[in-house]
Amino acid sequence: MPIRVTVWHEFRHEKLNPKVAAIYPHGMHEAIASHLRKSTDLQVRTATLEQPEHGLSEEVLNSTDVLTWWGHHAHREVQDDIVERVHKRVLAGMGLLALHSAHYSKIFRKLMGTSCELKWREEENEREIMWVTRPGHPVVRGIDDHFIIPREEMYGEFFDIPEPDCVFLISSFSGGEVFRSGCTWTRGAGKIVYFRPGHEAFPTYYDPNVLRVIENAVRFLAPAGPAPQAFGNRKLGWMDGK
Amino acid sequence: MPIRVTVWHEFRHEKLNPKVAAIYPHGMHEAIASHLRKSTDLQVRTATLEQPEHGLSEEVLNSTDVLTWWGHHAHREVQDDIVERVHKRVLAGMGLLALHSAHYSKIFRKLMGTSCELKWREEENEREIMWVTRPGHPVVRGIDDHFIIPREEMYGEFFDIPEPDCVFLISSFSGGEVFRSGCTWTRGAGKIVYFRPGHEAFPTYYDPNVLRVIENAVRFLAPAGPAPQAFGNRKLGWMDGK
Amino acid sequence: MPIRVTVWHEFRHEKLNPKVAAIYPHGMHEAIASHLRKSTDLQVRTATLEQPEHGLSEEVLNSTDVLTWWGHHAHREVQDDIVERVHKRVLAGMGLLALHSAHYSKIFRKLMGTSCELKWREEENEREIMWVTRPGHPVVRGIDDHFIIPREEMYGEFFDIPEPDCVFLISSFSGGEVFRSGCTWTRGAGKIVYFRPGHEAFPTYYDPNVLRVIENAVRFLAPAGPAPQAFGNRKLGWMDGK
Amino acid sequence: MPIRVTVWHEFRHEKLNPKVAAIYPHGMHEAIASHLRKSTDLQVRTATLEQPEHGLSEEVLNSTDVLTWWGHHAHREVQDDIVERVHKRVLAGMGLLALHSAHYSKIFRKLMGTSCELKWREEENEREIMWVTRPGHPVVRGIDDHFIIPREEMYGEFFDIPEPDCVFLISSFSGGEVFRSGCTWTRGAGKIVYFRPGHEAFPTYYDPNVLRVIENAVRFLAPAGPAPQAFGNRKLGWMDGK
Repeated sequence: MPIRVTVWHEFRHEKLNPKVAAIYPHGMHEAIASHLRKSTDLQVRTATLEQPEHGLSEEVLNSTDVLTWWGHHAHREVQDDIVERVHKRVLAGMGLLALHSAHYSKIFRKLMGTSCELKWREEENEREIMWVTRPGHPVVRGIDDHFIIPREEMYGEFFDIPEPDCVFLISSFSGGEVFRSGCTWTRGAGKIVYFRPGHEAFPTYYDPNVLRVIENAVRFLAPAGPAPQAFGNRKLGWMDGK
Repeated sequence: MPIRVTVWHEFRHEKLNPKVAAIYPHGMHEAIASHLRKSTDLQVRTATLEQPEHGLSEEVLNSTDVLTWWGHHAHREVQDDIVERVHKRVLAGMGLLALHSAHYSKIFRKLMGTSCELKWREEENEREIMWVTRPGHPVVRGIDDHFIIPREEMYGEFFDIPEPDCVFLISSFSGGEVFRSGCTWTRGAGKIVYFRPGHEAFPTYYDPNVLRVIENAVRFLAPAGPAPQAFGNRKLGWMDGK
Repeated sequence: MPIRVTVWHEFRHEKLNPKVAAIYPHGMHEAIASHLRKSTDLQVRTATLEQPEHGLSEEVLNSTDVLTWWGHHAHREVQDDIVERVHKRVLAGMGLLALHSAHYSKIFRKLMGTSCELKWREEENEREIMWVTRPGHPVVRGIDDHFIIPREEMYGEFFDIPEPDCVFLISSFSGGEVFRSGCTWTRGAGKIVYFRPGHEAFPTYYDPNVLRVIENAVRFLAPAGPAPQAFGNRKLGWMDGK
Repeated sequence: MPIRVTVWHEFRHEKLNPKVAAIYPHGMHEAIASHLRKSTDLQVRTATLEQPEHGLSEEVLNSTDVLTWWGHHAHREVQDDIVERVHKRVLAGMGLLALHSAHYSKIFRKLMGTSCELKWREEENEREIMWVTRPGHPVVRGIDDHFIIPREEMYGEFFDIPEPDCVFLISSFSGGEVFRSGCTWTRGAGKIVYFRPGHEAFPTYYDPNVLRVIENAVRFLAPAGPAPQAFGNRKLGWMDGK
């Protein structure tokens, strides 16, 4: 059975900044989606902020196994009821891959319970080295002990997140900062991965290692089965557990 | 330096139900607070829902090291801006002790990021046995390997919470159900403890073991020092980390 | 590619106790292995204590993706060099499923770093209820919110294990005790599952829910890929990470 | 009541290498111990490899709340029965602070259950920046969001440890490597802290930030009370939990 992936994208910077449009002429979502479409066991569609219900109707979400999320400029424009809807689906088992500046999206912050604040720097020639800190984890399958992104935006600690279930990548930057760049959590029946790279001004979503981690993450995030029965407020009688 | 504790209570059941009022004539908050007041290193005050700002003004919260929370009937009446204020204080280091039905309070759910739903049963003669699952933890100091509450309300798994940092107590009930009754998490610089017992219709907050765990939890939750400097969104320059 | 499973069994009680032999005429390992063999994507063999090198030669281990382990009477007879060999393979990515009294095996204790001691009772008519505490986890796929084993041996807390990555099942027993019956950990590139049921005097390894969890666990424990390259003591030069 | 600290040191490099002896004329243990002795609530003694029973008799360990450990050259010379003795004391509640190359000591590896291998480089002019990743934790009390050690030995990921309860410091090095330099775990009733800095060829144990973390760690590691009763293999009867 294929894994049904919805690649959600704010799709704003490409319209505001010609430099970004030059790198991602069809939008960052298409760079990600077109890579995933190469795998016949992934069934991929995209959704964007400007669409009705941000492209995330009940129908779309109910037929989504894994949702990837990139947002930055327009976090506040995402409607609260859609955030609520995505939140419910994650608890019911849908995987969520939060990319780069999605660290500050409403949905990620709601799932974390923290501020998700961090340090950053907007230099343009900063090298990021990403070191594997959980070899053997499916998310780093096919990745050597580290890989390098020649130019990226710096994100630095302290990153205000709950202690992750697993930290699989830690970055260092030319400026000497470090960052927990690959993390996993569980919320309800759903898994969440945060993966740091992806500043809009760099061609990061064409990098083979970055694409590999994204693809690995999608497979890792797919639910193990249908939404589980164990959930929910339920009043029991004496014999219900016997 | 004393630990400054604010015992917050919804204080509704005592007014609606004579049976509860008979058990807690001054309210459950006073049962808890009067125990804590016996320790000279704890500086204790109370706050309730009906007070202006629910008794949780900026001034009160800024001078609170540990907040205990009991609510049930009126979770929805707690104002969102006050929840936001408490949330910020927890991230800045204030400890939070969520008691019994506070599992479904706005503040606890916001900090967890999950539904916090569970199973329950309202029988009146159900015995709860609480087993220590992290001996040596300061929260169970002075507690043997288990203790028994002769009559309590059943809460059963699945309890939809993120995997705790530590589960220190697991309960079994006469009906055969189990529950993670003592859990800790970290959010930002703040610690959170959930402690299950405390159904309003039973004299649970006079039980010496329950009071001991509450007192231990208050000490465990007290911040290690002033609000840390590492926090917050901050833009760095090249030399800021060198 | 099939998952290569080796079902290891002490195979002692069946020879010493006719009652056990009556339940498991071919040994407990055959009850487990014959269930797993029904899945064509699992490639299953068995190994036992009395075989040369306990059936766990370098060759066998190097071609094992998941090792299941049941031992009790003869923990001390397992040779230290074989324990060392299994330990190395787990760190390199092989999954380990520790069953029932394997909690006190040399290999499990070595991987945990704790005493792995617990409480127990040898009554013969004790009902165990196992409650799902991590719905959506692949190990409980196809399991409802709880299941019941009509007769089992009691294991009770405190179970001296490191805080698990995930607790997916908690048991209650007729005597009122509780136990973390399903737990996962990561050590190196390998995953470990502990699954409690399986006292030799009961037909537990014919129970459909127990077999389902075992089969799920085997799939969950299979390594995500070949042994990762990130491992090992390694001296670097200046340019090795750039 | 004072915290009883035993500072254990291999004390070998100072005797073999005049350069080390010049930095630590009385040994690294005295640099650490003399700092701790400034606090009147810490009761400090030292112990070294060459002493009978490595200075760690039953009597010494039973009156030790927190043991700090530095070793490197002579890990193999530490007797297995003493390692066993220290291990038992940690499970019973004694805190352990593993410093720098103690990552590869017998006791640390036994408690972790993994290989504890890592990467390293012996350059002499490498700057280490340590970033706080758990502000508010008592171990980083009084530490800003980062601090710098001008010259240290590089340790790099992958560091083969179980996912820590908490990572409170992550380092970056001039060469671009990263390392989880401050970690905590729980084993039995005992807490363990690993703290990376302390190469023998540099005056690291005179650095005020390093000394502050060590002192904080000692306070954090002190047991919450006497050895708990919940422990140990114990056979129960029917009424023992009721």
